[in-house]
Amino acid sequence: MPKSDNIPAPAVRRLSLYLRQLEAFHAADHRTVSSRQLGEALSLSDAQVRKDFAYFGQFGHPGIGYRVPELIQRVRRILGTDKQSNVLLVGMGNLGRALVSFGGFAKRGFDVVAAFDRDPGVIGMKSPRPIAFSVQPLADLPQVVKEKSIRLGILAVPAPAAQAVADTMIAGGVRGILNFAPVTIQAGLEIAVASVDLGVHLEQLSFQLGTTVS
Amino acid sequence: MPKSDNIPAPAVRRLSLYLRQLEAFHAADHRTVSSRQLGEALSLSDAQVRKDFAYFGQFGHPGIGYRVPELIQRVRRILGTDKQSNVLLVGMGNLGRALVSFGGFAKRGFDVVAAFDRDPGVIGMKSPRPIAFSVQPLADLPQVVKEKSIRLGILAVPAPAAQAVADTMIAGGVRGILNFAPVTIQAGLEIAVASVDLGVHLEQLSFQLGTTVS
Repeated sequence: MPKSDNIPAPAVRRLSLYLRQLEAFHAADHRTVSSRQLGEALSLSDAQVRKDFAYFGQFGHPGIGYRVPELIQRVRRILGTDKQSNVLLVGMGNLGRALVSFGGFAKRGFDVVAAFDRDPGVIGMKSPRPIAFSVQPLADLPQVVKEKSIRLGILAVPAPAAQAVADTMIAGGVRGILNFAPVTIQAGLEIAVASVDLGVHLEQLSFQLGTTVS
Repeated sequence: MPKSDNIPAPAVRRLSLYLRQLEAFHAADHRTVSSRQLGEALSLSDAQVRKDFAYFGQFGHPGIGYRVPELIQRVRRILGTDKQSNVLLVGMGNLGRALVSFGGFAKRGFDVVAAFDRDPGVIGMKSPRPIAFSVQPLADLPQVVKEKSIRLGILAVPAPAAQAVADTMIAGGVRGILNFAPVTIQAGLEIAVASVDLGVHLEQLSFQLGTTVS
């Protein structure tokens, strides 16, 4: 595996875009695709597409381009989503409950298999679906991380509690945190942290309204 | 205003990235920035940065580059977020309740000022914060859209109900929908629809784990 230090974060972000676009080509029965076609669909130059893939190896076939199913599989392997992995969630408030039953994670290779909260009124609550578990106290986290080989955790607690809970998750063995609290999480360099910015989606819609409606 | 037809969607998506990066430069007291600096921070070529901005006008100053506060203001104006706008939300389940109290929207220029549900047990419920309102029945939507000059709506209902509710929102005057249901919403060409794919964030974390931890 290459070191992520060497690969610019935006190139990695574009991998997810390439994967979505490749899945769309696949659904439309395209068997091969050129860097130009892939670039055009995403409004990137073909040079940018080739440069991005070059970080990860040599994927094209001379005179053919990229084979769509093969490239999908290879991008998933690079992203680590070619197999399902277990993730946990901390904070079973409204957002946590919504995320536990959110279908989009499983489709992308992630099963929420455990949830934690500090509120005794919530502990013991059954998960709605699709995977059965009961909400556990945070003290159980390290054991569950070990038993279920969990590396990723979703942080869905209120902002004031977020850093302390993140520290507990990391001490318990979680290596990557998806943060929904609107605060910056401090973590060691060996810990991956991503924060969800839902505002960006409204911003994009706002632009479309400004230009399509008048 | 330019027509969005002429501007590739990825260039518009990059506007949001540019805005975040410009805000970071601004917070770090940078007064001017070159297309090369902006590109390097986002791992894009300076040509790509200049090309993207060229869709919207001429922003640079010869020999100076871009003036940071001025460019922030101009990008916000292009996105339509230089003033706060009112948005509504439909579906006060777990996700809807979480989104209504989510601080990130207001920071980006959007105030959730009304919420709707079909469940009589939820109608009349007070919004938690920061803006006071009571949950109303869907039938009230057209009047509220008019009174509060709302153009954007957040759709947070279960997947099976999503299309019918979207139709109701559009009939009621909503012009843009941020869809959290994991289904594709059909709408007329004059309606802007964006769907939130939370799976992509876990995908990106998964990549980072694959490369930084072993």
